[in-house]
Amino acid sequence: MDIATLRANHPEHWKLATAIRVLAMDAVQAANSGHPGMPMGMADVATVLFSKHLKFDAKAPRWADRDRFVLSAGHGSMLLYALLYLTGYEQATLDQIKSFRQWGSRMAGHPEYGHLEGVETTTGPLGQGISTAVGMAMAEKSMAARFGKKVVDHRIWVIAGDGCLMEGISQEAIGLAGKQQLDNLVVLWDDNNITIDGRVSVADITDQKARFAASGWTVLACDGHDPEDIERALSAAETAKGPVLVDCKTIIGFGAPHKADSHAAHGAPLGAEEIAATKEIYGWPYGPFEIPAEIKSAWEAIGSKGAADHAEWQVRFEALSGAKQAEFERQVTHGVSKKLATAIRAFKKAQSEAAPKVATRKASEMVLAAVNPVLPETMGGSADLTGSNLTLTPGLGDFSAENRKGRYIRYGIREHGMAAAMNGLYLHGGVRPYGGTFFCFTDYARGAMRLSALMGVPAVYVMTHDSIGLGEDGPTHQPVEHLAMCRATPNTWTFRPADVIETAEAWELALSSERTPSVLALSRQNLPTLRTKHTTQNLTAKGAYVLEEAAGKRQAILMATGSEVEIAMKARDILQSQAIGTRVVSVPCMELFAAQDEAYRRRVLPAGAVRVAVEAAVQQPWDRWLMGERGSEKKAGFVGMTGFGASAPANELYQHFGITPEAIAEKVKSLL
Amino acid sequence: MDIATLRANHPEHWKLATAIRVLAMDAVQAANSGHPGMPMGMADVATVLFSKHLKFDAKAPRWADRDRFVLSAGHGSMLLYALLYLTGYEQATLDQIKSFRQWGSRMAGHPEYGHLEGVETTTGPLGQGISTAVGMAMAEKSMAARFGKKVVDHRIWVIAGDGCLMEGISQEAIGLAGKQQLDNLVVLWDDNNITIDGRVSVADITDQKARFAASGWTVLACDGHDPEDIERALSAAETAKGPVLVDCKTIIGFGAPHKADSHAAHGAPLGAEEIAATKEIYGWPYGPFEIPAEIKSAWEAIGSKGAADHAEWQVRFEALSGAKQAEFERQVTHGVSKKLATAIRAFKKAQSEAAPKVATRKASEMVLAAVNPVLPETMGGSADLTGSNLTLTPGLGDFSAENRKGRYIRYGIREHGMAAAMNGLYLHGGVRPYGGTFFCFTDYARGAMRLSALMGVPAVYVMTHDSIGLGEDGPTHQPVEHLAMCRATPNTWTFRPADVIETAEAWELALSSERTPSVLALSRQNLPTLRTKHTTQNLTAKGAYVLEEAAGKRQAILMATGSEVEIAMKARDILQSQAIGTRVVSVPCMELFAAQDEAYRRRVLPAGAVRVAVEAAVQQPWDRWLMGERGSEKKAGFVGMTGFGASAPANELYQHFGITPEAIAEKVKSLL
Repeated sequence: MDIATLRANHPEHWKLATAIRVLAMDAVQAANSGHPGMPMGMADVATVLFSKHLKFDAKAPRWADRDRFVLSAGHGSMLLYALLYLTGYEQATLDQIKSFRQWGSRMAGHPEYGHLEGVETTTGPLGQGISTAVGMAMAEKSMAARFGKKVVDHRIWVIAGDGCLMEGISQEAIGLAGKQQLDNLVVLWDDNNITIDGRVSVADITDQKARFAASGWTVLACDGHDPEDIERALSAAETAKGPVLVDCKTIIGFGAPHKADSHAAHGAPLGAEEIAATKEIYGWPYGPFEIPAEIKSAWEAIGSKGAADHAEWQVRFEALSGAKQAEFERQVTHGVSKKLATAIRAFKKAQSEAAPKVATRKASEMVLAAVNPVLPETMGGSADLTGSNLTLTPGLGDFSAENRKGRYIRYGIREHGMAAAMNGLYLHGGVRPYGGTFFCFTDYARGAMRLSALMGVPAVYVMTHDSIGLGEDGPTHQPVEHLAMCRATPNTWTFRPADVIETAEAWELALSSERTPSVLALSRQNLPTLRTKHTTQNLTAKGAYVLEEAAGKRQAILMATGSEVEIAMKARDILQSQAIGTRVVSVPCMELFAAQDEAYRRRVLPAGAVRVAVEAAVQQPWDRWLMGERGSEKKAGFVGMTGFGASAPANELYQHFGITPEAIAEKVKSLL
Repeated sequence: MDIATLRANHPEHWKLATAIRVLAMDAVQAANSGHPGMPMGMADVATVLFSKHLKFDAKAPRWADRDRFVLSAGHGSMLLYALLYLTGYEQATLDQIKSFRQWGSRMAGHPEYGHLEGVETTTGPLGQGISTAVGMAMAEKSMAARFGKKVVDHRIWVIAGDGCLMEGISQEAIGLAGKQQLDNLVVLWDDNNITIDGRVSVADITDQKARFAASGWTVLACDGHDPEDIERALSAAETAKGPVLVDCKTIIGFGAPHKADSHAAHGAPLGAEEIAATKEIYGWPYGPFEIPAEIKSAWEAIGSKGAADHAEWQVRFEALSGAKQAEFERQVTHGVSKKLATAIRAFKKAQSEAAPKVATRKASEMVLAAVNPVLPETMGGSADLTGSNLTLTPGLGDFSAENRKGRYIRYGIREHGMAAAMNGLYLHGGVRPYGGTFFCFTDYARGAMRLSALMGVPAVYVMTHDSIGLGEDGPTHQPVEHLAMCRATPNTWTFRPADVIETAEAWELALSSERTPSVLALSRQNLPTLRTKHTTQNLTAKGAYVLEEAAGKRQAILMATGSEVEIAMKARDILQSQAIGTRVVSVPCMELFAAQDEAYRRRVLPAGAVRVAVEAAVQQPWDRWLMGERGSEKKAGFVGMTGFGASAPANELYQHFGITPEAIAEKVKSLL
């Protein structure tokens, strides 16, 4: 629909939508950077969505039963910010819009979760929003099954662009949502046929509608500038089978006389002249950032119309038993049940006595078997490696269209999609997600794992087969740099537990984390229980601690993690037998150790002794603990990997790469 | 087709295919690990492919015009190893098969490029093979356009499994191949409906045929156990339009009485009993690893039948001019033209005089403009960020179905697919690829970038917008941990040049690298030329060097990279003005510096002085250079990032995060 027809036939809609467009133009112009074209193109769709379909109450942005709106095409952030401002979200002020993209503004270049109420997830890296939304949709289904449709019954609406759909992660999301038949998920595709390099056809000829249909989606279409057609499509979407794609044909930079329908409208201010000409075409005589009171009021009415729904919901919610209400609140706000600590304590006591020799991936399964029954909010899964990751415990049941009470998600061979879905499961509320793959395939999931860290989503990544210890599968499957990668990433806890006890402690920390994701790097190979003396204290929470003190004068300190702690202990035996007093420090989490006060760090790593770190990975993260923290280069050594691994049985690899008790002892002696 | 019919109707085929199956069973059993089910399922398809379609000469595995065979489902490595042994590849001996998955064997758990002739690329991480094959197919088209169909006319055949197709990267490959209409690419889908967690339907209901068709592929199907039907499909594939998917319906573990058609056949030895029962069903009375001479001879005849094609090709090749032959050979074997050094030298001379103030991404474009015209083998591209990455230079032309002489690939919004395609472009021979995206989206491309390093493919990753210096787009787009990640990865050169001269030097090293990929981390923001005194020597090759010596007594050494070198230079001005003699060391490539001899490292970083490193990223990779290498903790400081960035103009971010000349000077003084 062209502008003249739109203005003539839908004057009220036109005013509402134009308010979005001009705010986007003005804010990008004022910031001198940003993306005006997408908000201008999708303003009509967004206006229909917010005014007629989206269930929300602008004054209660955290209302649990609200619809979620995810702007997967995050560069079009001004679309979202304009909507939040116009509908009356308290934090979304006009001053904030004026400070778009400036230091301290809640309105960052891309929507940042936690900066501004109404931003449901961080987007910007393309494809993340749509994939995160799949997790939100699963969380809604799970909560509805557990608490009832009367209090959980909402939709996830996504706006995604061509970029989102070209990213590989989108296929993982599409496949997962199709299999799960998530009929509470609607993706509005901003089909403007423009990418940064030009027309979409420069790089892609995919028939997106056929592609979505191939994975079990309902596919609809509309003229994205015709309010009636949009309304028809969105109504149809609400009753369609399975997840829904709505192909919204739009024009990027709609109305800009020289830049519409061109990548010139995508990622830069339109310029004062083009803005003036566009406003002329819009019939918008107002100054920058000026929204007539009448239009603002109309938008605010939209923002408050959900208040009635909200009030009705409140009545239904209060009809639940008090215990059920409390449990609902706890799960939605991610409160940590006291049952966790109790379960972990009992587990540790039993296992420190039983002292099993098990792989830490197996230990992880044992912990989960103790914890999952008492934490109804956990939802586990694996990227098609259930029997290897050992992430499934009895009684969870597969989550599926037939069993929404199931708590185990068969993610398929989709590491990236799994990680993004975990973000969505958590952000929705009501679910604490964990998911497994091989540690090496952190590589595939990185994009979404970084967003866990950036958003402060305490997802738990169960990363098994964490070193050359996986053996014969060879270097493509053997992480060597991945511990360094995770440790270099801000706000990420990288746990590498040494035995069943540390594994339990790591899980306790991971599941009670408030805003830090955890990576559990777990062994394929069996490891002895080293912590056979029970303590209720969570020693892993200290990040590093003295596992075994030196006998006699302390001449050396061995630091190690995971499967190498056992090797370090054997090296200590050798050294002690030669009267070289050797302390062994287990370092299950460097980040937590770094967060301890200096006095504690100094006690664990006193000056003077030779220090040798042992880890079947690259040295980079160890330099601080070897040469810093009162260490010195002349007394520091490392036993680990300097390159990629190889294909052979694990024991042979440890021999060939020289990660042995003997090599460690020799290294110590060479430094004494 | 069932076994009885197959044996009865196709006895010769049956024997050939069974030889593959039994070798796979026996080798996995002997190794006590591996994946027998896939080779058993795809043996019929592979037999038809190798005997009737694949153009190859087992005695000349590097013949430039051979068809490429890519086992994307790399876990089924024994399929490939059996084929290479049976057809008579010299390195693929029976002893090698017997040492499958053992230390030192050429036959690793997954096919490893460079270990064994006939392995065209490393596979194992799912989805990589199919995506790498797209690059190979583009290289074939490019070379054919440049050297003629008479000497370049072959196909890329891929075997991919359900796992490959579920990984997101496959969508990027499918989209790219469809757009490029690569009719020299045939993907044989091992449609066995089994993944590790069970039936494919546990996690996916995608109609793969419709999905491929949606991206412009020709889709065919066959009974993967019926040689005539396979033959019909492969013949049709050779004349079809665009890239081809052949849906090969197969049974995993074909013939195993208790494990066929089940994930039990996927990833573990069948066991002696099941193997015996299977051989009984096969009518195969021979012992482990025993292949009757008659069958081996028949396979060897297949392996040598391409020799005639090869000889004919040789005649056609020798009909080319001597210069053309030499150039062909050079490009196929990746020989480095002397014109590169000449062009770089001239460029450096001119630019050290002109001393432009340009972003290093712009500097990179200037280098490419000088280099691309003299190196016909370069093929550039970008993941839809051409105008930002500045990877396109005049005259390259878009590579497309209409213009196979084009040297610029519009990869679309597909970072992972781009990286894998670059691996394929190089591995095919004839092309030296580079490709761009934002440095932060290293996250998306990691899986394939790691394979560049593991395989020794010197692809060039042009990673622009390399820090908070990108400004307003905010933390989702601002790398802080990515330098650490790249530096932690073995066999990867991470360049972060400080000005136009270092950028040119980095490009020279990247384009002459024989087996190390390069990451060029380039600034968005303008940087002054610091190297205004011309030298023909490539100082970046040293990894780090003294950019500016201390005036007076040397009390401090500042180390910095990229955009922070300018800031360090200004800090030096402050310090020198306070009579604190300060050396500035530019560190464009830590890996190359680490490779220098100790004497050089000692000259650059002498003991005694205070050391402060400056980089708008996390500290982790710097500890070695601050506290190691004769440094000490008490005299070491770091000015950089400790967490994620923020959305604001770049200059403000540098102020707020304290990466300023003043902060550096203060840090030095606090340590003196």
